[in-house]
Amino acid sequence: MSTVDFEQIAQYAKIFSDLTPKREALIAEAGIKIMPHLSAVTEKFYVNLLKVPKAAPFIEGKIDYLKKTHLMWLQQVFTGEYDQAYVEMMYRVGYVHVQVDLPVEFMSGGITLITNELIIIVSELYADEPEKSFEILGAINAAFGFSLLVMQASYQASVSEVLNRFLSITGVSKVLFDNLAAAYDKKAANI
Amino acid sequence: MSTVDFEQIAQYAKIFSDLTPKREALIAEAGIKIMPHLSAVTEKFYVNLLKVPKAAPFIEGKIDYLKKTHLMWLQQVFTGEYDQAYVEMMYRVGYVHVQVDLPVEFMSGGITLITNELIIIVSELYADEPEKSFEILGAINAAFGFSLLVMQASYQASVSEVLNRFLSITGVSKVLFDNLAAAYDKKAANI
Repeated sequence: MSTVDFEQIAQYAKIFSDLTPKREALIAEAGIKIMPHLSAVTEKFYVNLLKVPKAAPFIEGKIDYLKKTHLMWLQQVFTGEYDQAYVEMMYRVGYVHVQVDLPVEFMSGGITLITNELIIIVSELYADEPEKSFEILGAINAAFGFSLLVMQASYQASVSEVLNRFLSITGVSKVLFDNLAAAYDKKAANI
Repeated sequence: MSTVDFEQIAQYAKIFSDLTPKREALIAEAGIKIMPHLSAVTEKFYVNLLKVPKAAPFIEGKIDYLKKTHLMWLQQVFTGEYDQAYVEMMYRVGYVHVQVDLPVEFMSGGITLITNELIIIVSELYADEPEKSFEILGAINAAFGFSLLVMQASYQASVSEVLNRFLSITGVSKVLFDNLAAAYDKKAANI
């Protein structure tokens, strides 16, 4: 992971989520009002996650620890600072998720559940300023989309590594592997 | 793919995105007003995507076709019907994305860009009903989160298949592979 260009990944993910400096500043501003409500977001997140049977093995026996790191991460998002240290942290989270065999769609589901809650919170906190609330929600969507992108870019890199490593270990070329796989598929399908 | 239990995947993704029947009905209702604005969402989506250098090879030479299928999909989302046919279609999209080597984070980036636009559209269409607009945005977040989950669950299954196929072809067990990989990593790191 030491050869990863985090500056480049940050740029890539910011463009892809349209996370602009204006949105970053808006998150930092709104973060002051939203911060006290984040522990409720974390609590609700785990209430929802526990309804997903496939998620149970990843939570059991460590829910207090997970809640703690989850809340710390949310608080970090709402500082509005997405510097290299933040990108490196998100990239590492994606890598750790591969190591524990977490399905990649869990990260998307997680962000969806968090955003569901934040929409409600922002609508209540900014009930008198609907226009501003929509701008904040746009910024929140971009910031969490950005974080998800970095996590999953890391995930993608780790998964690709598995096959590449196998090819290196065995000395099999990618072309030979593809041919073997095609032949194997035919045999498996009894063609 | 014929052995995939789409009913089970639908249930899993609905719980994980908290896509409730109430939210589905709300999307269908709002869909009538939002529908005429979806072609603008697709146009803006590709304007944004073209800013991402890594995305260019996946777009070049086929942008008109891509825009057409993109818009058709958005229109389908806004019918609010997420039945087995829809889940099967989304699952197939995930599978196709693996076949063309699309990085998994592209799907998350795509949903982020689309949602950015929909927040603006909903805020304008429902300017006189802010409370309702927040409910609609919650439903939109859940519906796109649901779609992303299904696509990525398919992606995950396809990627896992690659390694399993290699193990089947070579007759190597997963334990032996893990041991070989660990030994190889040590050698590569000159430990």
